[in-house]
Parts: sequence; C-alpha cells; structure tokens
Amino acid sequence: MNVADDPEEQHPTLALDDTVHQRVRLGILAIAREAESVDFAFLKQELGLTDGNLSRHLKVLEDSGLVAVNKGYAGRRPRTWVALTAAGAEALARELRALRALVHRLDAAGPPPA
Amino acid sequence: MNVADDPEEQHPTLALDDTVHQRVRLGILAIAREAESVDFAFLKQELGLTDGNLSRHLKVLEDSGLVAVNKGYAGRRPRTWVALTAAGAEALARELRALRALVHRLDAAGPPPA
Repeated sequence: MNVADDPEEQHPTLALDDTVHQRVRLGILAIAREAESVDFAFLKQELGLTDGNLSRHLKVLEDSGLVAVNKGYAGRRPRTWVALTAAGAEALARELRALRALVHRLDAAGPPPA
Repeated sequence: MNVADDPEEQHPTLALDDTVHQRVRLGILAIAREAESVDFAFLKQELGLTDGNLSRHLKVLEDSGLVAVNKGYAGRRPRTWVALTAAGAEALARELRALRALVHRLDAAGPPPA
C-alpha cells in the first residue's frame, strides 16, 4: 500500500473521515452547522429518520466529541437539542474541503467518456 | 418520518446513495471517471488499499452495475482493468450534484457559530 506522501497530491477521498462522511451523520453535522442548536425532532423530520436511527448516529458523533447533546424542556414537553462542538465544526470543514477538491477535480476532467 | 416532498427542498444528503458515497467506492468511481479505464494496481496505490479491501469494494460496485471489471494481460503479466459504466457515470453525477448543493448551502451559511 503506497500513497502519495504529500497530502496535496493525495486523492481528495483520502482526507474523508467515515465518522463525518457517512451520509446521515454528514446531514446531522451540516444542519447543526447552519443553526446554533437544533432540535432532535427537526433533525428526524428533515433527514427522514427513525428515533433509533438518529439516536445511534448522534451517539457516534457525541462519542467522537463532534456534537453536544442536551436534554431540556419546552414548556412541559421534554426536548433534546444538538449543537456542533468546535471539534465538530473543524471536522466538517475538513470534510467540505475534501468534497470541494473532489468536485473541482472531476469538473476539470470534463464530460465522462462516451 | 416525514421529509419534504419536493426533491428541491429536501436536504442534499438525502440524495446520497451509500453504494456511491462510501469514501473508498467514491474514490474508485472518481478515478475511473477521470480515466477511460484504470488498472487495479493503480487504484490500490492511489487509494492506499489492500487487495482484499479493493476487491470487496469493486464487487459492490460491479454487482450494482456501476463499473465493469475486465481481466487481461500486459505482456505475460495478468492485469485487471476497471471502467465506469454509463450507469456508474450517472450515479457519480448524482452524487456530485448532491455534494455541490451541500457545499454551496454551507458556504452560504457563513462562518460557524463562535
């Protein structure tokens, strides 16, 4: 296994991290990035997830220190809030840099072979 | 589970397909997109993979009809060549559209909350 030593020369997908890149977790991080704090129910609706599925992915992100999950109440109703941590914002920024590089590289490659 | 009916309004990550989006497979499809046909050994080197890892991901892509895998010889040495199918080019184009939409959306969101 040998890969270009210089990160600049490495294929952009080598900079992707499965914890961030997995499509549901990428959706959670992206929505949390757009809002200071986001409600569990909103994430579930926006990403078309079940409670179990969303909870599993949130646990992976929380265990990796990428999001903070806080439980509280809105009136008498229990609510769960998700917020991006600084580490989460940096991890998402790295992911976006890699995705941008991949898209630019393929745009430069022109149309696919006929 | 309810998600916006209009695809335009759906979160970009909802358009991602795990078969394509998984980071090793995305790397394979992207490199195959840049070259008409690409050698197994080159993919292994460029993506820093083992034979087993690359073969497993190639099988997923081949079984999904996204790549064609051909075995031949270069001189007396056996070689395996990978090429994107038309379905593979379309699937990668859908992935790139979703990634572009995600990147644009987050660029528009401005800097992360302090």
